[in-house]
Amino acid sequence: MTLPFFLPDMKPELNLRIEKVKEKMAEAGCDSMLLASTVNIYYLSGGIFRGYILVEKDYDPVWFAVAPSEFPKDRPGCFNIRKPEMIPDWLRDQGRTLPAVIALEFDDLLYSELIRLKSLFPDAEVVNASSIMRGARLTKTPYEIEKIREDGMHQAQSYAQVPKCYKEGMTDLELQIEVERVLRLEGCLGYLRAAGSRMELNLGSVIAGDNADAPSPYDFSMGGAGVDPSLPVGADGKTIKPGTTVMLDMNGGFNGYQSDMTRTWYLEKVDDLAVKAHECSRRILRSLEKMALPGVPVSDLYDKALEIAREEGLEEYFMGHRSRAKFIGHGIGIELNEQPVVMARNRQPLLNNMTIALEPKFVIPHVGAVGVENTYCVTPDGLDNLTVFPEELAEL
Amino acid sequence: MTLPFFLPDMKPELNLRIEKVKEKMAEAGCDSMLLASTVNIYYLSGGIFRGYILVEKDYDPVWFAVAPSEFPKDRPGCFNIRKPEMIPDWLRDQGRTLPAVIALEFDDLLYSELIRLKSLFPDAEVVNASSIMRGARLTKTPYEIEKIREDGMHQAQSYAQVPKCYKEGMTDLELQIEVERVLRLEGCLGYLRAAGSRMELNLGSVIAGDNADAPSPYDFSMGGAGVDPSLPVGADGKTIKPGTTVMLDMNGGFNGYQSDMTRTWYLEKVDDLAVKAHECSRRILRSLEKMALPGVPVSDLYDKALEIAREEGLEEYFMGHRSRAKFIGHGIGIELNEQPVVMARNRQPLLNNMTIALEPKFVIPHVGAVGVENTYCVTPDGLDNLTVFPEELAEL
Repeated sequence: MTLPFFLPDMKPELNLRIEKVKEKMAEAGCDSMLLASTVNIYYLSGGIFRGYILVEKDYDPVWFAVAPSEFPKDRPGCFNIRKPEMIPDWLRDQGRTLPAVIALEFDDLLYSELIRLKSLFPDAEVVNASSIMRGARLTKTPYEIEKIREDGMHQAQSYAQVPKCYKEGMTDLELQIEVERVLRLEGCLGYLRAAGSRMELNLGSVIAGDNADAPSPYDFSMGGAGVDPSLPVGADGKTIKPGTTVMLDMNGGFNGYQSDMTRTWYLEKVDDLAVKAHECSRRILRSLEKMALPGVPVSDLYDKALEIAREEGLEEYFMGHRSRAKFIGHGIGIELNEQPVVMARNRQPLLNNMTIALEPKFVIPHVGAVGVENTYCVTPDGLDNLTVFPEELAEL
Repeated sequence: MTLPFFLPDMKPELNLRIEKVKEKMAEAGCDSMLLASTVNIYYLSGGIFRGYILVEKDYDPVWFAVAPSEFPKDRPGCFNIRKPEMIPDWLRDQGRTLPAVIALEFDDLLYSELIRLKSLFPDAEVVNASSIMRGARLTKTPYEIEKIREDGMHQAQSYAQVPKCYKEGMTDLELQIEVERVLRLEGCLGYLRAAGSRMELNLGSVIAGDNADAPSPYDFSMGGAGVDPSLPVGADGKTIKPGTTVMLDMNGGFNGYQSDMTRTWYLEKVDDLAVKAHECSRRILRSLEKMALPGVPVSDLYDKALEIAREEGLEEYFMGHRSRAKFIGHGIGIELNEQPVVMARNRQPLLNNMTIALEPKFVIPHVGAVGVENTYCVTPDGLDNLTVFPEELAEL
């Protein structure tokens, strides 16, 4: 099996991933796939280079680098090319036939990028490589699960320092900046990979008080008005007030993988309804941790969460008050928003070794957001929490 | 003229932009354009919402919001729709004919996003809206120039605090984290908008010592190895050593616009070659500031910079040593990497009110990167510096 130029000790891991990818290609009836997005290059190489990976049913994958990336000359399966137009020539030189069907990443490449790659194979039918790769990445390898667990441990280390970050009279944004520093010093790489074009965010968000009810145009469960019309999300720069809550939903990102974890603090005092809702969020998580077994439809998790919220008379605050998110969780891995989306209309079954973030949250008017989010691995014994950290509503 | 739901005082500014966009549409022979990317929505609205803007030659633009974004009911020209498929129906309801040619953003939307919009107009020819919008955004309005100047002032305020950020024995990454905090406290929004898919970076980079010579797969003038294979760019986590330089190329981003500014510091002492190269960078900037008049081909700037470097015997260090960037600057605005790219093969003429970042840099082996980057506005009197801050090689 060929290997890319970095991390030679990842050979068994990459072989496992290649196998998973080829299985998904076979299921899609697709013999050839050309990948170019950084996420999928990272998945199949363990590192980032500029170039392409060609995966063909009957051959080892081939890595093509374009400048400034360059492979050492003697690395089997690794080639340096000037431009992607040289890939069909390379195939012909190898005596291979050009693919009749080629998978390209519809949901990961810009239109112009994809059209360029499509033109390399003018006679081929083009199918969606993004769904094949998302299928392969849907369940994680043991190595990946440990990466996410490690990420969660770093996140927990960072969250432990939140009360120290707070100084009297701080705004939500000032608190966020101190937490960002703590995350970065703990090793957070400072760049969030997310699928699609609907997530513009740095390291996460801090939502305090009534700002929890401000809707944002982005795909986040809680919005926040932000401080500038160019980035209307998250902290709004107002002083944190006694009697309100501060929800931290900072994303990890310490090692190429993400964990997603939310905890909530309050300032001085907090009213009973908020405490009740926060405890309800924890009760929902405990319930989902047990029922989320392989084979259970994802929608059952959403339905169960809503049912518990309803039983406790908290439905009107569930996942937002003025405007509501329609999901309570999402897959997570290299990207923050992987498959599956945990929502009512997704009947997709849970699979062993899926990693999902579950975030049943409530917005209590004039108090703020409450609730807990953990990142879990699906196992035959229920969910394994990868973001272990005290969940109680805690004083700042 | 219709207006979107935010910032009503931006009406004259938005009208000016709409005029510029319509001019570029006319030049491209295109009567209809449908925009969906956040950058272009921001450009034509002064804010971000989820939805679409339809620009037609003979009509006022129309703003369509999809949930969770929502326009107030009575705002002329603003409509709430459930999905983009309702746009052709809206056109028919208005008695308008469906466009025969529609411009969509080839370089700003994912393939799947664009294909969905294309399917709304099955009989229309589709042309590239990204190039039309890039053409309109190529020169800035006075309002935009002041936004970039304001951004540069905040950046300068932040850079003034760099020596205070440094503590003996720090790594490049630790210094970067303290500078990021200073930038954020100064108002940096913490999210970098860049065109294409080849820039994965948080707030900028700090490059110390030999790390300046590590190539990165991204489109940055200086690379850096980074600290993790998932993000091979920038600071590499090594302790900053006496006798080496530390180059800060942090991006602004305080108000929806970017300024780009590089300054260089050294620890304890620095060798003569590095000082000479740093002064050469400044001499190049002084020279370009005078010659960069409207009408001058962009390539002349690159050629002149290289010529000066060559005259001083510094060519082998120019824009990298082991691997070299092929550009010395780039347009800048809402995105970090706008048109034009300042490189040898770009004969595009400079235009009045273009904003460009110029970054003639050198990499001196065993010392590090040196040089200065400023963001400028092109005027009939030469370049107007929007990032005013002392340029001398300074002690940390």
